[in-house]
Amino acid sequence: MSLIVQKFGGTSVMDAERLRNVARIITRTYDRGHNVVAVVSAQGHTTDELIAKAAELNPKASKREMDMLLSAGEQMSAALLAMTIEALGYPVKSFTGWQAGFLTNSRHTNAKIKRINKDRVENALNKRTIVVVAGFQGINRFDDITTLGRGGSDTTAVALAAVLHADRCQIYTDVDGVYTADPRIVPTAVKLSEISYDEMLELASLGAQVLHNRSVEMAKRYNVYLEVLTSLEEKPGTIIKEVTDVEKMIIRGVAKDTNVARISLMELADVPGIAFKVFSLLASKSINVDIILQSIGRGDTKDISFTVSAADKDSALELLRENQARLGFSDINCDDNIAKVSIVGAGMATNPGIASRMFEALAGANVNIQMISTSEIKISVLIEKSAAERAVHAIHDAFYDLG
Amino acid sequence: MSLIVQKFGGTSVMDAERLRNVARIITRTYDRGHNVVAVVSAQGHTTDELIAKAAELNPKASKREMDMLLSAGEQMSAALLAMTIEALGYPVKSFTGWQAGFLTNSRHTNAKIKRINKDRVENALNKRTIVVVAGFQGINRFDDITTLGRGGSDTTAVALAAVLHADRCQIYTDVDGVYTADPRIVPTAVKLSEISYDEMLELASLGAQVLHNRSVEMAKRYNVYLEVLTSLEEKPGTIIKEVTDVEKMIIRGVAKDTNVARISLMELADVPGIAFKVFSLLASKSINVDIILQSIGRGDTKDISFTVSAADKDSALELLRENQARLGFSDINCDDNIAKVSIVGAGMATNPGIASRMFEALAGANVNIQMISTSEIKISVLIEKSAAERAVHAIHDAFYDLG
Repeated sequence: MSLIVQKFGGTSVMDAERLRNVARIITRTYDRGHNVVAVVSAQGHTTDELIAKAAELNPKASKREMDMLLSAGEQMSAALLAMTIEALGYPVKSFTGWQAGFLTNSRHTNAKIKRINKDRVENALNKRTIVVVAGFQGINRFDDITTLGRGGSDTTAVALAAVLHADRCQIYTDVDGVYTADPRIVPTAVKLSEISYDEMLELASLGAQVLHNRSVEMAKRYNVYLEVLTSLEEKPGTIIKEVTDVEKMIIRGVAKDTNVARISLMELADVPGIAFKVFSLLASKSINVDIILQSIGRGDTKDISFTVSAADKDSALELLRENQARLGFSDINCDDNIAKVSIVGAGMATNPGIASRMFEALAGANVNIQMISTSEIKISVLIEKSAAERAVHAIHDAFYDLG
Repeated sequence: MSLIVQKFGGTSVMDAERLRNVARIITRTYDRGHNVVAVVSAQGHTTDELIAKAAELNPKASKREMDMLLSAGEQMSAALLAMTIEALGYPVKSFTGWQAGFLTNSRHTNAKIKRINKDRVENALNKRTIVVVAGFQGINRFDDITTLGRGGSDTTAVALAAVLHADRCQIYTDVDGVYTADPRIVPTAVKLSEISYDEMLELASLGAQVLHNRSVEMAKRYNVYLEVLTSLEEKPGTIIKEVTDVEKMIIRGVAKDTNVARISLMELADVPGIAFKVFSLLASKSINVDIILQSIGRGDTKDISFTVSAADKDSALELLRENQARLGFSDINCDDNIAKVSIVGAGMATNPGIASRMFEALAGANVNIQMISTSEIKISVLIEKSAAERAVHAIHDAFYDLG
């Protein structure tokens, strides 16, 4: 019996009408002869409302209690979806995270899955029962409820697909797939029929909000056949898998990220180990650094620039200033009026000229490049924030509008 | 270390202000040197809202899924109360029903507690941690979430008090104790400082909504020292225990119940076993019969009248009509424009003249008595519904306004 895991986000289950729509998608899949595990997020704004309630009572509420509170959201939507499926006359059971066997570490609000005891879900599936699982949650070894952090329900779905050896894991969202650029910015953006895990990871980390990186990383590790599609229309989405069949398209997408800040340390001593000192200091406070640019030494000093997420900017600056004497830089400056624009594609590594075509497009659109970073499958540039949309347009046109 | 179990109903935790008030009651108790277990219901109208959501999706939703849905309500209020206590700087942990060790049978939406694994709660208390338990819920042996039915959170509190050998179980409600009559009807009603379990059980079954019978029965069985009091003011409530010290007051209260219907079967054969046939038939459909009145046989027939709850009226009538041939009555009639008014008190059995004083009061108020039923500690009369309040007043005055 083939098995399909289907994940539905908060907007897909936000009201009775949407829940009925989701129930129809699930039962249609079931009628085609598949077993189905549905993973659900909390309805609509439930999570935000619960967070607001908690903040009113205690802005510094413990993470343990936050997990206790928030996990109820998914529990409710799982039960409501199960009832909706019951109303269509199908056998169905809902499970909380712990009932579905999700054991995590104890890092409340951002827990990692350690193990899934799949027996209960498997027993239900063996009876041809549709299984609805509350996403985003598990329990730790003390039997405390934990949650998986941002994108947690995607992770729940992919993890279940992995341990149950599902034939496919479908992530239903309010967009109908992965696009070569944000369709709200670039009307000519093209929906990809396929993309590789690595490409998807680069796109996600670049600000394409379709799938959270954790779930894609897990899909890659366990070779889960992922599909991103919309719950609002019945049409194919984008398939994410190890090797894609479509080789002719060199770049998979253009993404922009405006939640980024550049920090520059001026006149650092040009001695071995200085970069290590700077970045291990930042790492010790869990501040992720993205693009790094180190100037060629001038005499006995050099400058180092790097980007951090806008949210980490203040703590990074504070930390660096505290350590100015030890690191020995003359000055620090920061710019958060910037955007990172990137192109991603596995074909890039074997296609010389991609970078130059991107830079040409930017020049043609009169966009000044501040920093450049490249990898096997990605080229990112840092530009002024106000030029971000213009840059995405220009790059997209350069690669896709070839007639 | 003494232990107090405190239960807070839905209105006591309905918003931030009320939650803070409850947190203060709990921490004040803790500061006096007691360990505290707090049991909470779902906030305000949460349960009703969830039931309405479910009804929209599936009016015949399975009871299993209803339990999955509704139990989230208490989980949320437990977490919110724990956060509020955290904000006051006290050590606290919230537990769901299953985390607190509540194992029940599998009768979803009306489950009975089978066992409580108290280790987790006890371990927390031994560390002087305040424990907040989500009321109304448990799990069955399949690890499915169950709920305890009406008054379930009271039952949770009393059961915890019993297994933990608590010194006291305080039920906080929106009334400040048990009264000799409904104070909204009888302004001169007196708050009882003490009442016995049996008297409380009679009062509860007569429509006094303070405590659900199940919890009082459990308190009686395990000799739990119960107290009913209000969360809105700091003042003593009513204590419910085995033997009360106050013997001088003969009757404990006057109660009325207007959710009642009288059914009469006319001209039944006056043969042995006919009453058994009628009432076993009703029992087979779980229809509870309260007051029964059988006329003296006239020739070879007799009439039987009895009361059922108004909710059971239609199904009782239908059932009886279906079996008219077998039971052999000539006619059936029904009146739901009636009320049951009762007086309760352990002193009654040894005090002749109580009944006559009650009947005298009713006659003086020009209230016609349709049926009478008496027990060791209770006298109930059936009267016209519109006379119910007048009757309660008259009876109350006859017993309490003795100058």
